[in-house]
Amino acid sequence: MKDINLSGIAAELERFASERDWGQFHSPKNLAMALSGEAGELLEIFQWLTTAESEQEALSEEQFGFVEEELADILIYAIRIADRLGIDLADGIDRKIATNAKKYPIEEAKGNATKYNKRKK
Amino acid sequence: MKDINLSGIAAELERFASERDWGQFHSPKNLAMALSGEAGELLEIFQWLTTAESEQEALSEEQFGFVEEELADILIYAIRIADRLGIDLADGIDRKIATNAKKYPIEEAKGNATKYNKRKK
Amino acid sequence: MKDINLSGIAAELERFASERDWGQFHSPKNLAMALSGEAGELLEIFQWLTTAESEQEALSEEQFGFVEEELADILIYAIRIADRLGIDLADGIDRKIATNAKKYPIEEAKGNATKYNKRKK
Amino acid sequence: MKDINLSGIAAELERFASERDWGQFHSPKNLAMALSGEAGELLEIFQWLTTAESEQEALSEEQFGFVEEELADILIYAIRIADRLGIDLADGIDRKIATNAKKYPIEEAKGNATKYNKRKK
Repeated sequence: MKDINLSGIAAELERFASERDWGQFHSPKNLAMALSGEAGELLEIFQWLTTAESEQEALSEEQFGFVEEELADILIYAIRIADRLGIDLADGIDRKIATNAKKYPIEEAKGNATKYNKRKK
Repeated sequence: MKDINLSGIAAELERFASERDWGQFHSPKNLAMALSGEAGELLEIFQWLTTAESEQEALSEEQFGFVEEELADILIYAIRIADRLGIDLADGIDRKIATNAKKYPIEEAKGNATKYNKRKK
Repeated sequence: MKDINLSGIAAELERFASERDWGQFHSPKNLAMALSGEAGELLEIFQWLTTAESEQEALSEEQFGFVEEELADILIYAIRIADRLGIDLADGIDRKIATNAKKYPIEEAKGNATKYNKRKK
Repeated sequence: MKDINLSGIAAELERFASERDWGQFHSPKNLAMALSGEAGELLEIFQWLTTAESEQEALSEEQFGFVEEELADILIYAIRIADRLGIDLADGIDRKIATNAKKYPIEEAKGNATKYNKRKK
């Protein structure tokens, strides 16, 4: 996978919105709704498939296209929210991976995806 | 915003899952559910705020932290799905921006965010 | 609003699925994805509207129709999940309202919709 | 399953909100976000389970309790939106079931849950 040039894309999205006078619609609240709507469309691709049918070797060309498109929509809205709020996504991801490493120590988590706060103490 | 080193993060997530024997849980179907669950948590931050209260100058430090965390979760699952399916996210975003430019010509779209398929012809 | 005859609708949905041999797709996991996808479509109706524009007096006939349809889809999937799992929705709602009354005492909650677990102690 | 007394519950929810001065937060837009957030929590219960593990005979008592609670939350918000907008949910469900019967004729739909608009013509 190629790197994502986040500041370049963020600037492009800002210009796109600004040319269309869409800044008024793009509050973080509204963008979060739009992102979640796209996540719902991603679900619709997979909802009646078995987990095996959702894997790379089983999806059709058409399904790949749908997934690529929904992931792109989700990322576009995530970048737009981050840009509107001055959040650095790369830092956020690094921090989150570090947190997860602490929350899910290898020995305890092995073969067990139970969420942290639902694991028995 | 700094660039996101997608292949580096994808490899880190793969190692993280593999050390915990979590590959069995990480079908694209299941990852799409997890992404959508995180999108739901993003909504919860904003649901009772006005659009003005969701803007950068109005959010509290704590709310910023929540948003950063949920966006990171969403991106992590998006990168993981793309990695499992061999999808290039940067290409997908470029293609989507090009599609959107055609779907929403500046003159027609000005000040009007009505979805393409709901606009009157 | 008229009552909902839950056992009648549940039986109708079961017959509908069974005639189409859809029982195989209707695991609670898959139905939860479908419900969430419909919730995403509900969001799409409202995402670029202000809160005022989402109120009864401001929605167009067409928008009312969309909302009615998405709410129906959501309820249909909720009833179907409950039926597959032997859950009584009326009891669940009663229990939840009682829980909420305890979680949000009138004096503390007045004019403040902050979620229980995010309120300062 | 017992019937749901919709007008009774709607009135109870209205009184609950009104006692807490929450009417200001309960625009249909905000309630749709809250409903979708609860749908996300429903997903989280099922996301790492296989479809078989999500069935009635496989869920734990604790998981049943979580599902009951999330379904109740979803219904409560759906009823609240319907009440705020003057939508009759029972009529909506009837209409939707009739539409689905036309969209998915038994012969064509047998064993095939592909969404109407994605079926080959």
